[in-house]
Amino acid sequence: MKKFAVGIDIGGTYTKLGLVDKDGNCPVQSKLPTKGHSDIEEYLKNVKIEVDKLTNQIDDCEIVGIGIGVPNGNFYKGTIEHAANLEWKGVVPLIEKLKPIFPGIPAILTNDANASAYGEAIFGSAKGVKEFITITLGTGLGSGIVVNNKLVYGNNGFAGELGHTRAVDNGRECGCGKKGCLETYCSSTGLKRTLLEMLAIKKAPSKFRDLGINDFHGEEITEEALNGDEVAKAAFEKTGFILGRSLADFVAFSEPEVIYLAGGLVSSGELLFEPTRRSFEEHLMNSYKGKVKIMPSGLMDMNAAILGAAALIWNEYE
Amino acid sequence: MKKFAVGIDIGGTYTKLGLVDKDGNCPVQSKLPTKGHSDIEEYLKNVKIEVDKLTNQIDDCEIVGIGIGVPNGNFYKGTIEHAANLEWKGVVPLIEKLKPIFPGIPAILTNDANASAYGEAIFGSAKGVKEFITITLGTGLGSGIVVNNKLVYGNNGFAGELGHTRAVDNGRECGCGKKGCLETYCSSTGLKRTLLEMLAIKKAPSKFRDLGINDFHGEEITEEALNGDEVAKAAFEKTGFILGRSLADFVAFSEPEVIYLAGGLVSSGELLFEPTRRSFEEHLMNSYKGKVKIMPSGLMDMNAAILGAAALIWNEYE
Repeated sequence: MKKFAVGIDIGGTYTKLGLVDKDGNCPVQSKLPTKGHSDIEEYLKNVKIEVDKLTNQIDDCEIVGIGIGVPNGNFYKGTIEHAANLEWKGVVPLIEKLKPIFPGIPAILTNDANASAYGEAIFGSAKGVKEFITITLGTGLGSGIVVNNKLVYGNNGFAGELGHTRAVDNGRECGCGKKGCLETYCSSTGLKRTLLEMLAIKKAPSKFRDLGINDFHGEEITEEALNGDEVAKAAFEKTGFILGRSLADFVAFSEPEVIYLAGGLVSSGELLFEPTRRSFEEHLMNSYKGKVKIMPSGLMDMNAAILGAAALIWNEYE
Repeated sequence: MKKFAVGIDIGGTYTKLGLVDKDGNCPVQSKLPTKGHSDIEEYLKNVKIEVDKLTNQIDDCEIVGIGIGVPNGNFYKGTIEHAANLEWKGVVPLIEKLKPIFPGIPAILTNDANASAYGEAIFGSAKGVKEFITITLGTGLGSGIVVNNKLVYGNNGFAGELGHTRAVDNGRECGCGKKGCLETYCSSTGLKRTLLEMLAIKKAPSKFRDLGINDFHGEEITEEALNGDEVAKAAFEKTGFILGRSLADFVAFSEPEVIYLAGGLVSSGELLFEPTRRSFEEHLMNSYKGKVKIMPSGLMDMNAAILGAAALIWNEYE
C-alpha cells in the first residue's frame, strides 16, 4: 500500500486538494469551486468525489488522514468561525460534518496561514529552523508563527492575525472594521490602493492613469515598475517601507531566525524585497540588526497550504 | 535539610535576592547596590557574602541552585548583553564568572521580564494559564510572553522586547535609538513625559505647573489625578489609550488568555486600568473582543523577578 494524506486548501473561490506522501511529494492534485457551494453538505459530497478521483489514480492507495487549511479555521474545535470570505456564515463544525462522509479517517483542520507555515517547516525552506514567521501576501495578509518548532495557536486557536495589526495610525479602512491594518497596505489589494495613492501624489506619467483600480493587476504593476514607471516604483517602495517596519516589530515579539514571505506579491522579487529589507533593518532594535533574515518561501511553485495541511496529518501519524 | 533556590533580581540601582522554597515562600531577603560595582568580580564576591548571610539565617539550609533575572540576560548563553542600564558594558559571561564563586551549584539566568513572567506562572495569578503575557510598567516597559506554558525565548534569547515596538508613528525619542517605542509612553517615565505634554496642551490649573519633570513622581501623579487634577487625569487617559491599543496588537500575535500588568505604575489602579481596557476592546479585532482579560499581577507585593528566577531552578530541579 502507498500511504498518502489528503491535503485540502479551502479558499474563497476555489478549494484545492492533493495527495501528499510523507516526503512531501504530491503526485495528484485537483480543485473544485468553493464559491456557489452555500450548502456545506453538498460541498463536502463534492469534495469526497474529488478525493475518490485522486485515490483512483494511484494503485494501492491508502489514505491515512485528511488535513485542511481554511480561513478562520479553529484547530482546537475543528470549526470555521465567522470567515469573511466564505459563504458559510457563523460557526461551521466542518470536522464533525466531514466524519460521516469519510468514516474512520482522522481529519484535522487549521487556519490556512498556519497550514502554510507548517508546510514551510516540514517540506519547505524552514526545515531545521526552530523560530520563524511566514507572511503570505495574497488578496489579504496571512501569517503563521512558529516558536520552538511549534505553531503558535493561541488560547482559542486564533493566534497569528498579523494582517490586522496596526501598520499606520488612523490608516486605511480594513474589511475587519479596524483602521490602518497591515493587510490594507501589504497584500495585492494593498499594493493597488497604494498605487492609487501614488497616482494622486505624483505627477509622473503612468499607464495606470488610464485604468480603474478594478483593472489593476499585480503582475502588471510589477512589469511597469520594472519598465521604469515612477508611480509603480513608488508604490513598491511604500509597500516595502510599511512591511519592513511592521516585520521589525514582529521580531520584538518572538525573535525569529527567518521571516518567510509567500503569496502572489512575492513574485515581484527585489521590487518588494529590497525596500522591505531596507526598512526592516532601519526599524529593528540594535540588538536584532543583521540577525534576522527575510526570505522568499521555499514552496513558491507548490501549494504550501495543501502540503502543510497534509503535514499536520503526517505529524500525528508518526 | 530545607531546600531553597536563590533568586536574584539584578536591577540598575539595586540587586535584590532571596531564598525561595519550592512553594514560592521567601522567608529571607536581602539587597546590595548594583550601581558603583563596575568591577564584576568584586560585585559577585559581594553577592556571595549576601547569599551566605541569608543561608546562615536558616537552619539546615541546602541551596539547590541560583536563578538570576537581569536586563538583557541571555538565557541560552548565560550572558548579559549590551545592557543600557548596567555598568558592565558589552557581553558579560555572568554564569561563567559565577561558577568558581559558587562551585557545584547550578546557575541559570534570564531576562528580568521573562523571570517575572515565570514567577507569575509558577507562584502568581497565572497558575494554570497556558497562554499569557506579562507587561512590567516600571522605569521602562518589560515583557514576558508565555505560549503553551513555555516562555518565548526567541532565536538568540532576546524575544519579548515589546517595550520597543512602535506605539506611535514618528513618536517620542527612545533610549534604544528608535522613535515612538511603547515604553516612551507606557512606563513611569512615559507617564511623566505625557504629563508634560498635557501641561502644554491643556489650560487647567495643576500642581505640576510649579515642578520640573525631574520632580514628578508616579505616586504624586496618581494622587493628584484622584484629587481631580484635570491634567494628571488626561495623562492617565492617554497612557491607557496607547497601552490598550498596543496590547490589542499583541493579541493578534499570540492570542493570550490574560495580559498581566505589573510594576510601579499598576498601583495607580483604575486610573490606568479603566482607559487601558476601554482602548483595548476598541482596538481588538472582532474575533478577540471580550475574550482576553487584562489583570494586575498576582505578585504585586512580592518581588516577581526573585520568585521567577528561583522558579527557573525549581523547574529544572524537579
